[in-house]
Amino acid sequence: MNSSVPTALERAAGHRQRFDAAFEKYFAELADRLGGPPLSRFGPRCLELLARLSLRGGKRVRVILLYEAARLVTEDEVPGLTEAALSLELLQTHALVLDDIIDDAPVRRGEPSTYYAFRQDLPDRPRTALGLAMMAGDLAGFLALRVLHEADMPAERRHALLDVQFGVTTDTVLGQVLDLERDVTPSPDEALLDTVCEYKTTRYSLLAPLRLGLLAAGEDLTAHEPSLRRYATQAGLGGQMRDDYLDLFGDPEATGKPRGGDVRAGRHTYVVRALLDATDGPDHAAVRAALGDPHCAPETIDRVRDIALRHGVDARVRATIERHAEAAAAEAASWRAHWRPEAVDLFEQLPWWNARRGH
Amino acid sequence: MNSSVPTALERAAGHRQRFDAAFEKYFAELADRLGGPPLSRFGPRCLELLARLSLRGGKRVRVILLYEAARLVTEDEVPGLTEAALSLELLQTHALVLDDIIDDAPVRRGEPSTYYAFRQDLPDRPRTALGLAMMAGDLAGFLALRVLHEADMPAERRHALLDVQFGVTTDTVLGQVLDLERDVTPSPDEALLDTVCEYKTTRYSLLAPLRLGLLAAGEDLTAHEPSLRRYATQAGLGGQMRDDYLDLFGDPEATGKPRGGDVRAGRHTYVVRALLDATDGPDHAAVRAALGDPHCAPETIDRVRDIALRHGVDARVRATIERHAEAAAAEAASWRAHWRPEAVDLFEQLPWWNARRGH
Repeated sequence: MNSSVPTALERAAGHRQRFDAAFEKYFAELADRLGGPPLSRFGPRCLELLARLSLRGGKRVRVILLYEAARLVTEDEVPGLTEAALSLELLQTHALVLDDIIDDAPVRRGEPSTYYAFRQDLPDRPRTALGLAMMAGDLAGFLALRVLHEADMPAERRHALLDVQFGVTTDTVLGQVLDLERDVTPSPDEALLDTVCEYKTTRYSLLAPLRLGLLAAGEDLTAHEPSLRRYATQAGLGGQMRDDYLDLFGDPEATGKPRGGDVRAGRHTYVVRALLDATDGPDHAAVRAALGDPHCAPETIDRVRDIALRHGVDARVRATIERHAEAAAAEAASWRAHWRPEAVDLFEQLPWWNARRGH
Repeated sequence: MNSSVPTALERAAGHRQRFDAAFEKYFAELADRLGGPPLSRFGPRCLELLARLSLRGGKRVRVILLYEAARLVTEDEVPGLTEAALSLELLQTHALVLDDIIDDAPVRRGEPSTYYAFRQDLPDRPRTALGLAMMAGDLAGFLALRVLHEADMPAERRHALLDVQFGVTTDTVLGQVLDLERDVTPSPDEALLDTVCEYKTTRYSLLAPLRLGLLAAGEDLTAHEPSLRRYATQAGLGGQMRDDYLDLFGDPEATGKPRGGDVRAGRHTYVVRALLDATDGPDHAAVRAALGDPHCAPETIDRVRDIALRHGVDARVRATIERHAEAAAAEAASWRAHWRPEAVDLFEQLPWWNARRGH
């Protein structure tokens, strides 16, 4: 490969860097722009916690997809692209803050979750802490839409981008609601898991960045929607299954959390479902006993993992993940017919990064 | 008065009726328009609870102000006005759902609050119920902005209306945060109370409807902003003080809730502050003892009320409310110079309705 042409991976790193600088600038200017009430101590604390959570975070896969989706069409500077990226990542912050309240999660990205940060600030007032965390999450959601509304770009195009993000907000909420429903459903079937994945993850983490990037670059999506959806759904399923896989089979050093979180939470993930389907007798009973026990010992998780390995659950899930990655990559390959091949590269490679990450 | 010209009160009733029909239609069509996931039981339940809460509610003062603000400029049909009204009331629903979580309030508008409805649905799963209530509130907030984004009206005008509503969302969140701060501040001063009132109530209940109605009708607000703000602030303070007044001095039959809720919650309202300022010795100690005791007996509340009456707190607060109403009405009167007098009438009268309601 010619060393003067950046590879997909190098471009991804550039997108991430460029975005992180923009995100930092956004938060540095936010308090002034909001012009909030002058007397508040908690208001600035909300903004501070949102900034810290947002800025310490993540692989920025959404941002990379977004920037590269615009490059499918053009190499020129695309107005509104940065605001679309800010919108996506603020919506992610919004979701994380609320998820951590719902899951009562003390830690997020290596620091206290927003909810727990407020609980530490106000040890005697758990309800005030809850209220503040809810308001912080709320604020991030509104800011996600506002930043796009205020983007300096052609009005019609901005309207189309906001259409996408409004769809994302309601899809994501309904996906989260369905996720809660899964947790109270004794034996959710695979169709339910697929629907949760589609609404809670795929649409905003994969489809929305693609659509936003293309729309911002001036592309008419009508003819492309079905292919974008197929790509997003396949890549989304592969990514979700990889998350589920890493939870039981991953290296705790690499994932940064102990194994078996989903088992302890009683979450019917793809892996947990496969495990229940593959077992009977005492093995099945052992899995059932561990499922939903928050105090389940590491040794019990190890036993569940051994059962899974013995029944070949790991290999089967890996094979399914690879099939989804393959289908997504094949879909992206078909884009070479009308879009810039250099950008298509990244979309072909991404499902494989996703499918094999954590190794 | 000529019987063929409807009075301000009659017009207000007409606005309310017209809006309630539009709100009902909105919710009847919402599930189809959202196109949510097909398998959900909780998703439809969220929409149902949001619809019930929204439709059983309130005096619709915001809606009346909005419609009448447009009539300050024109009697013609104004595109986007209904969507602006839906946006305001959905934002109100959003705020109520979240307030009731923060306050752990079982009842709202005579039925279970959204939070408690879910807790009754899922008695063994309080955390799932919390998550669902949070998601329902969240959804209402996003829908409030989306309905305006999708309004069929000139793009530039729609953008101006959305500007207002985006400002309202962040102001309201920061106001709610400041309200929580007030509750943990041992002796909040009046400036803090005024700021909470301005951000949490005035801006979205009074200023936003005025601005939205005028903007939708095509008015350029630049020259009018200071007067609109003065009107809203005065009417807002009067209205907030009236709420605080009714909590201790109102007729429980008329208000629909027992007296002294603010005292039990330990909330430093205008009345509670006046009461603390007016007393010393054993009276002061008795008030302090009741403040923040959730199990405070009705007899204790009666005693606090007697102390307040004995020190003339009721009369002083009433006089202040009247002063604010007077100032707001005088501000509205100045609008006769440039706006339609018939509509100005309502804005002159409204602060007085507000100041004397509940009698």
